[in-house]
Amino acid sequence: MDKTLRKALMEITPGREEHRKEKELVERVFKKLERFDIKPVVVGSVAKKTDLRGDKDIDIFIMFPRETPRKELEEKGIDIGKKVFRSLRAKYEIDYAEHPYVVGNYEGYRVEIVPCYRTRKPQSAVDRTPHHTRYIQKKLRRNNELRKDILLLKQFMKGTGVYGAEAKIQGFSGYLAELLCIHYGSFKKTLKAASEWRFNLVIDPENLWENKKALSYFFPDASLVVIDPTDENRNVAAAVSEQSMARFIHASRKFIENPGMDYFFPPERKTPAKDGLRRRINKRGTKLMAIRFTHGRINPNILYSQLRKTRNSIVKQIEGYEFKILNSDIWTDEKKLSIILLEFKVWELPPIEHRIGPPLDKSRMEQDKFIAKYRRFKPKIEKGRWVADVRREFTEAEKLVPKILRGRKGFGKKIRELKRIGFVADEKILDIDGREFLSFLGEFI
Amino acid sequence: MDKTLRKALMEITPGREEHRKEKELVERVFKKLERFDIKPVVVGSVAKKTDLRGDKDIDIFIMFPRETPRKELEEKGIDIGKKVFRSLRAKYEIDYAEHPYVVGNYEGYRVEIVPCYRTRKPQSAVDRTPHHTRYIQKKLRRNNELRKDILLLKQFMKGTGVYGAEAKIQGFSGYLAELLCIHYGSFKKTLKAASEWRFNLVIDPENLWENKKALSYFFPDASLVVIDPTDENRNVAAAVSEQSMARFIHASRKFIENPGMDYFFPPERKTPAKDGLRRRINKRGTKLMAIRFTHGRINPNILYSQLRKTRNSIVKQIEGYEFKILNSDIWTDEKKLSIILLEFKVWELPPIEHRIGPPLDKSRMEQDKFIAKYRRFKPKIEKGRWVADVRREFTEAEKLVPKILRGRKGFGKKIRELKRIGFVADEKILDIDGREFLSFLGEFI
Repeated sequence: MDKTLRKALMEITPGREEHRKEKELVERVFKKLERFDIKPVVVGSVAKKTDLRGDKDIDIFIMFPRETPRKELEEKGIDIGKKVFRSLRAKYEIDYAEHPYVVGNYEGYRVEIVPCYRTRKPQSAVDRTPHHTRYIQKKLRRNNELRKDILLLKQFMKGTGVYGAEAKIQGFSGYLAELLCIHYGSFKKTLKAASEWRFNLVIDPENLWENKKALSYFFPDASLVVIDPTDENRNVAAAVSEQSMARFIHASRKFIENPGMDYFFPPERKTPAKDGLRRRINKRGTKLMAIRFTHGRINPNILYSQLRKTRNSIVKQIEGYEFKILNSDIWTDEKKLSIILLEFKVWELPPIEHRIGPPLDKSRMEQDKFIAKYRRFKPKIEKGRWVADVRREFTEAEKLVPKILRGRKGFGKKIRELKRIGFVADEKILDIDGREFLSFLGEFI
Repeated sequence: MDKTLRKALMEITPGREEHRKEKELVERVFKKLERFDIKPVVVGSVAKKTDLRGDKDIDIFIMFPRETPRKELEEKGIDIGKKVFRSLRAKYEIDYAEHPYVVGNYEGYRVEIVPCYRTRKPQSAVDRTPHHTRYIQKKLRRNNELRKDILLLKQFMKGTGVYGAEAKIQGFSGYLAELLCIHYGSFKKTLKAASEWRFNLVIDPENLWENKKALSYFFPDASLVVIDPTDENRNVAAAVSEQSMARFIHASRKFIENPGMDYFFPPERKTPAKDGLRRRINKRGTKLMAIRFTHGRINPNILYSQLRKTRNSIVKQIEGYEFKILNSDIWTDEKKLSIILLEFKVWELPPIEHRIGPPLDKSRMEQDKFIAKYRRFKPKIEKGRWVADVRREFTEAEKLVPKILRGRKGFGKKIRELKRIGFVADEKILDIDGREFLSFLGEFI
């Protein structure tokens, strides 16, 4: 294993030139920031020296005194950011976290200038970042081995598809990877521990909670709880889904059994050929449907989470009509096209439906309503309840789906507002543009 | 309503000639019983004068002293019965309740000679009958109106298909009808009360239980509890199913709204024409299957209850394979042919099946087993669990049913032992012999 790790490390450790370039860029931005009355600080992996080779993110926080009104902080923060990038002749845009900030594209780097409060106790998620940076810096002081292990862990998570707290991945943030590696002591020890993880595991690295049992009540829905050493009330792993946790557990087990570079650098997925996909679809004998959403740019975090919400609602509505879904998933190019893919186990039903009504011994009014409503279907008594074999509203899922797409019940807000929603079924799904989508389809079936 | 009741009463009150004939027959049997050292007693509706016109049942109990060993009681009881019918030149056979007894066919009457113990506190169900008879006799002494109302209630229950505690009907016994009528005070009051009944109702006519709440715990599964005035631990209504209770509730409501002779004497069901049935089957668009059991004579109570048990097991097994049943029912000619009728909502499924395996964080051994077992179907992780799209064992219910009929898992004992079990589907069901079956089919669909 050690040989693999050394080899991987050679690939992911940033070169001197890269660090020199980063330092130079930071200095240039700092120079521009001098004339404003704020304290700039580099945060994130550049500051912690835990950045992977080729990582082009530079995060600079500009710190305002505690007593600054929030509105002023936001306006001044944006204003300063804009002025800096303008004078650097860099393109920029406004992005939003808990408050707005400016992101510039400067010499190929994504440079963020984020306003925040300078406080001991963080007020918001943004304010925590400088604390995180300091905590990790302290832990890594004079411990270069651990720093290397963090790089390995981050790349391992990247390679196995669980790196990133964003809605798309629902996985492990960089800070979480750092905490885990520090907590367990090394890359190998982290993998060893993860291979035995249970869902709902609680890790409290700095022992901030006396009563660990209380923790499970405090974070009831978390697959994994890692208490933030800088804020005992925050679960650093809140974004980690059961799915990502499971994948990490599994990858850890497999890697320990049989290490390989593929875990760090997975071979690129080949786009599957349409003919092969067509054959596989036919062999499955199920019914596939792809619901297409055409849209403008939507913040990816919002997009993924609303697509999931929409998918859940559609599946629930379909199954309410007694059709059965075998699998479903979402896909998006994050630019203009999103897809909800549905695979049906049951997509046709007979023209009658066994409708179950109120029991004979409850409200007479409800009984009379049921009898009157279904009079022409001759209600009968069955096991003490009224029942009627009524005409089914939809005998084909393909006729039901347009109704659901018109109603848009339970859809994410951004998706509900879209003009262009449509769907295609069966082999026509193969005509949807894009190799990425076909790769996704290949994984799905 | 009163006019209807008077009219019905004229139809159901036995004539003088009928009572005279019964009396004469009883006397002849008693004469034959004289030479044995037992005390005969007439029980049942003849003794209580609550028998309906044309009721050809005469129940004679022969009472043995308490200290008689059970074996001796049974042997002597049978022996006496046989001898009596032989000397009357009547055909007879042995039947079984809690112990064996002899039933003779004497001048068109079904005469039972049943041995029992003469005790104050009944030892068994059989021993209770004389107590029941005495209780009702006492209650009806000098109350001819109530006797008439009992006849009406029995005929009403007969006409609406809920009369009889046997497994076929799972309804109201004669004794139960008598108790209800006495408890509520009249036929009309009984119907009025029943129209407001709730399931799990408790009636304790003689107030034998102080704590009525305890009663529900004592009879937790009963749809209706009527405490036997002669034995506080017995629920006279134990046989009443929710279905029979519901039908009686409904019939009571309808009769009160709009009385009519049809409730007492329902028009005979016309056998539906095969062509009409065929059209209706096709219109429903479901899949019908009839499982045929060819058998010799089986005690009807055992037959009905084992058919139900068998039906339940078959339905459960079918749904275990993800097919869906819309309706199912049983039918038998009680002689040589029984049918379990199944109507499918889903009878075809795609060739793949979404098999859900163990979660990632539980026993590694189980996980490895699942992965090994389904290796060729490429297990994936989904929501923290192993899943695999495996090849489905049965894509058509029609291919599954023969396997279930071979396995006979959970079938009633008598049915499990049958040699000839087969099944037919769709229109071929119409070829099953017998108008009775076609009537049943007509009701079913």
